[in-house]
Amino acid sequence: MAQLATSVVNLIEQFSKLPGIGRKSAERLTYHVLRVNKKEALELADSIRAVRENVCYCKHCFNLSETETCSICEDPKRDSTTLCVVEQPRDLLALEQSGTYSGQYHVLLGRIAPLEGIGPENLTIKQLYDRVQQGTINEIIMATNPTVEGDGTALHISNIVNDLNIKITRLARGITAGSILEFTNKEILADAITDRQEF
Amino acid sequence: MAQLATSVVNLIEQFSKLPGIGRKSAERLTYHVLRVNKKEALELADSIRAVRENVCYCKHCFNLSETETCSICEDPKRDSTTLCVVEQPRDLLALEQSGTYSGQYHVLLGRIAPLEGIGPENLTIKQLYDRVQQGTINEIIMATNPTVEGDGTALHISNIVNDLNIKITRLARGITAGSILEFTNKEILADAITDRQEF
Repeated sequence: MAQLATSVVNLIEQFSKLPGIGRKSAERLTYHVLRVNKKEALELADSIRAVRENVCYCKHCFNLSETETCSICEDPKRDSTTLCVVEQPRDLLALEQSGTYSGQYHVLLGRIAPLEGIGPENLTIKQLYDRVQQGTINEIIMATNPTVEGDGTALHISNIVNDLNIKITRLARGITAGSILEFTNKEILADAITDRQEF
Repeated sequence: MAQLATSVVNLIEQFSKLPGIGRKSAERLTYHVLRVNKKEALELADSIRAVRENVCYCKHCFNLSETETCSICEDPKRDSTTLCVVEQPRDLLALEQSGTYSGQYHVLLGRIAPLEGIGPENLTIKQLYDRVQQGTINEIIMATNPTVEGDGTALHISNIVNDLNIKITRLARGITAGSILEFTNKEILADAITDRQEF
């Protein structure tokens, strides 16, 4: 690689570290940065810097925020008696985009994954308990991912908050809107039959 | 998107502008930048800035360089009588990595593409002519891409330098090492038969 300028080699290496970006993609991205006008390239650099310097976690719900308290926690129009528990800020965003939920959130910042050494103490479960203990919340909706680890995390949390006598629900499971029964896998169909609803 | 911090939204938009990065990938990259340690995130930002601030084109061959003249043009061990013409710095890199060429290069910084409004005057063809006219070069190897536009660009250049009476060659075409004849397409096989060599 002696034929490439040092800063080009550096940038290729930096891009390669990003998830889903291999060596060839990193080279393509680097040539793109070299080709676009300088303003656009520096905007990307500044945005990365800004995100790391301005963004922190909301002190109540652990959503990403540029202020101590995020815009959802501060919104007086939202229902503060319902709490939706998600793994990551991006899950919160996906639920917000569905436009059907108007309560509060609590972001765990991960899920319990013993194989990766992530235990309950690495998540914001204690803060969730403290929040629920204050008494304003009537319902907790478990919206962890429908995976073994996500389900395990939800089960762990429901065991912990059980003594507070609060209604605990989880997201509905079944066939997905727009899908075709013939091509739906057996786990999904099993969920759909088990949780069947009155017509 | 009111639920996301402004600088997060900004970075997602900046990442989306990169080639091959869609909305979802941009979100994933942004969350990655938020998750890694601050040093690593800022290194990426600084590398992007450094590339745009330090890297320029070599004044002889138009390869990317941090100095006026690139390391290849300055290397006295390289054969200065052979000139390999490529479209982009990344083509130069690919040829260098093959380890079989030790002459000089000339980077066109594109190819003639009338549909995109790129004509000969947008490339470094004039500088190539001036360089060849100085008289030290005996052979020009056309290493533009084997596409309609690449071939057209090579043809255009060969017409222009024709009056200087220099040997002009192009990269060999044929079946690729490791390929399987049965699955090789007809254009490649036609090239391979036309340019067949003595055994």
